[in-house]
Amino acid sequence: MAINSAAIRWHGNSLELLDQRLLPTQTVWLTISDSQQAANAIREMVVRGAPAIGIAAAYGLALEAQRLGDNASLPALATAIECLASSRPTAVNLFWALERLQRTAGERTGSELVQALIEDAESIHQEDLAANRRMGEFGAALLSPGATLYTHCNTGALATGGHGTALGIIRSAWEAGTLAGVYAGETRPWLQGSRLTSWELLNDGIPVTLVADSSAGQLMAQGKIDAVIVGADRITANGDTANKIGTYTLAVLAKHHGIPFIVAAPLSTLDSELPDGSHIVIEERDGSEIRQIQGKPVAPAHCPVYNPAFDVTPASLISAIVTERGVIDAPDTSKVLAHLQASH
Amino acid sequence: MAINSAAIRWHGNSLELLDQRLLPTQTVWLTISDSQQAANAIREMVVRGAPAIGIAAAYGLALEAQRLGDNASLPALATAIECLASSRPTAVNLFWALERLQRTAGERTGSELVQALIEDAESIHQEDLAANRRMGEFGAALLSPGATLYTHCNTGALATGGHGTALGIIRSAWEAGTLAGVYAGETRPWLQGSRLTSWELLNDGIPVTLVADSSAGQLMAQGKIDAVIVGADRITANGDTANKIGTYTLAVLAKHHGIPFIVAAPLSTLDSELPDGSHIVIEERDGSEIRQIQGKPVAPAHCPVYNPAFDVTPASLISAIVTERGVIDAPDTSKVLAHLQASH
Repeated sequence: MAINSAAIRWHGNSLELLDQRLLPTQTVWLTISDSQQAANAIREMVVRGAPAIGIAAAYGLALEAQRLGDNASLPALATAIECLASSRPTAVNLFWALERLQRTAGERTGSELVQALIEDAESIHQEDLAANRRMGEFGAALLSPGATLYTHCNTGALATGGHGTALGIIRSAWEAGTLAGVYAGETRPWLQGSRLTSWELLNDGIPVTLVADSSAGQLMAQGKIDAVIVGADRITANGDTANKIGTYTLAVLAKHHGIPFIVAAPLSTLDSELPDGSHIVIEERDGSEIRQIQGKPVAPAHCPVYNPAFDVTPASLISAIVTERGVIDAPDTSKVLAHLQASH
Repeated sequence: MAINSAAIRWHGNSLELLDQRLLPTQTVWLTISDSQQAANAIREMVVRGAPAIGIAAAYGLALEAQRLGDNASLPALATAIECLASSRPTAVNLFWALERLQRTAGERTGSELVQALIEDAESIHQEDLAANRRMGEFGAALLSPGATLYTHCNTGALATGGHGTALGIIRSAWEAGTLAGVYAGETRPWLQGSRLTSWELLNDGIPVTLVADSSAGQLMAQGKIDAVIVGADRITANGDTANKIGTYTLAVLAKHHGIPFIVAAPLSTLDSELPDGSHIVIEERDGSEIRQIQGKPVAPAHCPVYNPAFDVTPASLISAIVTERGVIDAPDTSKVLAHLQASH
């Protein structure tokens, strides 16, 4: 069946991804025909955002099975799975989606396998949208009327199966009439805040003000921020959260100013196999992303650069984690595990 | 007499400014012939950095007197002084330099006035270099051997009469063999860290690693930073410090991680007439500096932006202020005023 979301168009047997590298100035959709193309799109950040990466990987594996046709089987898909799994290291949703599809595949082969994988990928896509809607309601209920929020990176419809995680809460709060406005950090080096978040929020008529990442402290000192709300790429058993570089800085600032720091993520982002954040692999990206902006040099060509894509925020700095199952206040290992084990 | 520093060339009767907007890809010197051109160069950030702005304004006023020739007098220079004073609002060195030249002018007229202003502007330039050398020694003595520092914006030879303030301390520490290396924040929106600081440090062979501003927190959490060292655009009587946007965020991070936070500034940056930072006028610049990078759009064209050029760091977050007269530990009003009143 066809499922369209802001950045992922599934036509039942073919996939298009919105090239998010070109937003907001150009809207270009790329056709993805197999797992190799899906892996490249993830690696090169055509598609980004932990939940969207998981969905794209799931469709990529289903397309690979479709390509194999009668020869499709789990062993025949092993290389494709490996290729997809190695496309980005930090977001756990990628591994979660691939593991789920492998369980679905089981001993199936041929057209039966193809059909099962397609249906499961579609379910992952639809479930993510539904999870975001629920997360939005749980999160919006945490906010005081008239709240002004600060957010980082892009956690919206572009980053997910629709609606968004942190941005989904912002959307739900706006629909509920409890939101005054949002400050969006531009989010160097990829500028997801400038390019994607401000674009999504302006499209929805939600009041957004774009700022340099480094001005977050001053905004908080001026009393302009009521809560910080971000997404997550991986949350470990104790609540430590890997997210876009700069998230940890915001958490320290929020703590210093006594402002709630809220993480929004679907259950698929929780990785209970890792006890804490020290075990998370942090992707380091090329120095050219700092030395150049949109292809234009802004620093000496050979200047050494440290360019981690993510950082880890310890649970002690997190006021609440919001999932589609509810809210984990002041997260720790026992609360996170209890939340995961709660009945649906 | 001719005085050349990294970004200011004074030929005794004419001025050239290095267009810092074009670094590091182009090296273009602009000829400045009168106060109007000097004011424009300051406003448009051809020249930037609080001490360099003061020096450029002083030469600009001297050039204006030279242009007036026999008609030069303090009343005849009133419009030029007003124009220069309104070019940037936050850096106090600008006002300090203009006031000093007005005292020097006194009742003088004609060629006597011209000569006096030229000599005083030259003195301001030379004194700044000497002050930075002394500041460098005082500051370097605060650092442990093998220290790795984090710095923000550009406070080097380009921003001053030479050597630099915070970067002067880094240079002096490197010369003394006590420095392991420096992390430089790129410093959005103007990218002074990418374009200027990394360029200066690479030219001097000092190990520099460029990072996105938002990664400062993660670097500190990893134990990679031994001290944060920044410049200042204005320091009030109680030690509150206005500096490039993002400085306050770094100060909060340093406090959270128990890392020394050091401010380096010449005495001309201390404004004892303002009791505290709440009285400092903070310049807000155009939103296009955030919506575009180097002229290229990176956000929706009409996205609202908040773009303060500076923020204020309260004295309580500052470990030490270093001037050419020595070190003010844990600054407060009594210590700052005593430091200002100390004999030379």
